Amino acid sequence: MKALNKKNISTIISASWIFTSDLESQLLSDYSVVIDNDKIIDLLPQSKVFNEYEAHDTYQLTDHILIPGLINTHAHAAMSLFKSFADDLPLHDWLNNHIWPAEKEFVSPSFVKDGSILALSEMIKSGITTFNDMYFYPNETAEAAKELGVRGNIGLVVLNFPTNYATDPEDYLLKGFGFRDKWRNEELITTSIAPHAPYSVSDEAFTMINTYSEELRISIHTHLHETKWEIEDSIGKYGMTPVQRLNNLGIIGPSLMAAHCVHCNDQDMAILAKNKVSIIHNPSSNMKLGSGIADVARMLEQSLNVCLGTDSSASNNRLDILEEMRLAALLIKGSTNLPESMPIKEAIKMATINGAKALGLDGIIGSIEKNKKADLVAIDLSKIENQPIYDPLSTLVYSSSRSDVNYVWINGKLKLKDKKLVQINEEEIIQLAKKWQIKLKKI
Amino acid sequence: MKALNKKNISTIISASWIFTSDLESQLLSDYSVVIDNDKIIDLLPQSKVFNEYEAHDTYQLTDHILIPGLINTHAHAAMSLFKSFADDLPLHDWLNNHIWPAEKEFVSPSFVKDGSILALSEMIKSGITTFNDMYFYPNETAEAAKELGVRGNIGLVVLNFPTNYATDPEDYLLKGFGFRDKWRNEELITTSIAPHAPYSVSDEAFTMINTYSEELRISIHTHLHETKWEIEDSIGKYGMTPVQRLNNLGIIGPSLMAAHCVHCNDQDMAILAKNKVSIIHNPSSNMKLGSGIADVARMLEQSLNVCLGTDSSASNNRLDILEEMRLAALLIKGSTNLPESMPIKEAIKMATINGAKALGLDGIIGSIEKNKKADLVAIDLSKIENQPIYDPLSTLVYSSSRSDVNYVWINGKLKLKDKKLVQINEEEIIQLAKKWQIKLKKI
Repeated sequence: MKALNKKNISTIISASWIFTSDLESQLLSDYSVVIDNDKIIDLLPQSKVFNEYEAHDTYQLTDHILIPGLINTHAHAAMSLFKSFADDLPLHDWLNNHIWPAEKEFVSPSFVKDGSILALSEMIKSGITTFNDMYFYPNETAEAAKELGVRGNIGLVVLNFPTNYATDPEDYLLKGFGFRDKWRNEELITTSIAPHAPYSVSDEAFTMINTYSEELRISIHTHLHETKWEIEDSIGKYGMTPVQRLNNLGIIGPSLMAAHCVHCNDQDMAILAKNKVSIIHNPSSNMKLGSGIADVARMLEQSLNVCLGTDSSASNNRLDILEEMRLAALLIKGSTNLPESMPIKEAIKMATINGAKALGLDGIIGSIEKNKKADLVAIDLSKIENQPIYDPLSTLVYSSSRSDVNYVWINGKLKLKDKKLVQINEEEIIQLAKKWQIKLKKI
Repeated sequence: MKALNKKNISTIISASWIFTSDLESQLLSDYSVVIDNDKIIDLLPQSKVFNEYEAHDTYQLTDHILIPGLINTHAHAAMSLFKSFADDLPLHDWLNNHIWPAEKEFVSPSFVKDGSILALSEMIKSGITTFNDMYFYPNETAEAAKELGVRGNIGLVVLNFPTNYATDPEDYLLKGFGFRDKWRNEELITTSIAPHAPYSVSDEAFTMINTYSEELRISIHTHLHETKWEIEDSIGKYGMTPVQRLNNLGIIGPSLMAAHCVHCNDQDMAILAKNKVSIIHNPSSNMKLGSGIADVARMLEQSLNVCLGTDSSASNNRLDILEEMRLAALLIKGSTNLPESMPIKEAIKMATINGAKALGLDGIIGSIEKNKKADLVAIDLSKIENQPIYDPLSTLVYSSSRSDVNYVWINGKLKLKDKKLVQINEEEIIQLAKKWQIKLKKI
């Protein structure tokens, strides 16, 4: 008669290992996560789970590690259509002669929709369940996120120069807020104001953005101190670094997500730390564009919240947070000469809960805990490449790859099953990419 | 009657793209490689190949890029059994309290045989067709290479302290030459003398090694300038850097393969360049152990031959030359702030022909050319993660992963087919690893 007392719920996922990524950073062996609808409602040993719950779907994942969904905290999803379009060029040649002309000719709502669909397909296959985006035509990026069921924080981009999308800061903001109002009731979509960068946004526009950010309690996502050029340019024009300038304008604060911060002097770093800014580390992109290697050791010393981003496919060529996590863990050791820098659990936290904190979403995602949303990734560690396994967290960070990502759930819904996208025809997405490839190759 | 004139040969491999990695660095579209027995005998357009040749086996590889087999120029294969055994520890703690005690307790012929089988299985799956090894019990590593049909240059390791394998430099050399004599007629096996490192080998032993190297025309493989500690230690003991000391001892020359060279002053670099040493760059291992980031830009400026190594699974955790290639291409840009550093083709050459040059095997491997051995890798670029493809070489270096390695041939023989090892039961290899995992976990 015991069965009568069992609670009927949606899903039970049992895995050999579960890393919670919560405050206690627990690695649990032979545990189960219990999901009802969109939420995690329990976390208990496999030996007990079937006494208490009756699930519609059950997954028994031997040799898998279950982790919170990976968070890609700096993306320009639609730019996936520029992957391998132009590489290894000096920054100004790359922008002036390749990326910007191509954007001028091709970027449109359909480009953004299709590019975002491609990017989000790649992200799901890489175990990414939340992305923080900044690009033109946010409506189309949000539509792609909705179609694929990916959690997205979409930037309301602001620039001081005209593009196909908008003409001036007022126009960008008008369009951005129009988009925000339209999508405000969509569960998976949130927004930030996204002034592109200190060198492309005026003081007046930043002041306006600051007012909106405070009034609407909306976070800000920007590029900051990505290159040495940008800092020299700011010192030349404003007599101070971009961090100092933005601090004067009120932009530097706990609701700021600052992508890159590759080059910061002590004063800049102190301003960022004092104001509890979240820093988005993009190791692949920073290296590929020749921007440099961010001093993450110093950021961690100052207790800054550091999370991870891929940046766009034009400057990284893979939307793969597992790879950025491994790189972050390696680069800090190579730069400091201290192999004990960034222990494995800290690297995993950068890819999960720290991203959630940056986005202000750590109340609902970023860790495996009761009452959080069921954004989960199961990674299969059974392959030859991952053997032997003395420490599954080491295997996860240093040996496994996105090709081991076997199952992905977002908001309780299955998105990847046996490495295949659910309810999406992968061949159609490949054809979508090829269609644009043929168009863009002509220029 | 035309068919009567066709030449009967072993294998035709047709691929969408072929990168030759020879002097001309050609990227050929819709070409075929013609193999007879162990050799490449022709390279011609797909449209012509079937008029001239009749093959026993044909492969029509749409969306694949065919490249020369990847060369892993610095490995300690057997140490795969230590993968994830101890990570992120200060070097001396790691060696003294973890790796060396485990080696003392467990390293034996069967450990080396099984560890090498595991490592070489991983390497084949990662597109590696040649490995340059240094460890104890070379006979067992060679046996593993022979069983799996992987091309191996096996080091005759020399140390000044006793291990399970040998007692003193004379004993190491005696055992090494015994091994060399036994295996001298084995086609896939070559040897180097492998003095472990300047800090673990005496002047007397290096002098002896130098004599043997010259008399037998055998190359030398050693660790050199891996850590700052090693250099300071040498200056303290010998009044000079290890490079300067080895130069005085006659070891520095064109037949030297020097692994790491992370820290070199101008004088060291000049000595290495003047003597045409081959440098083996191990970016993941150097970062993970906190050794540092090698100044590859300076090496390339001095026209040094730079090739790539994984180092062992104890300090890298993946035997993946595609990953080292991507890292090398990114790190040089991040370090120099020049995105144009190391163009894509140069990165691929580091992973192929440069390794062959280091090993003195560039007459038979390292590029796709007539009369070279058929060591080939076909990488499938059809997945969503690799789309779109404006430049297949960019896709190869920046977007693809070892999980895209679909076919591998070594010496004309198929070793990997549809991502599965041929004639090897992968499950048995996983069980082999697990057997040792259980043993080692007890300590």
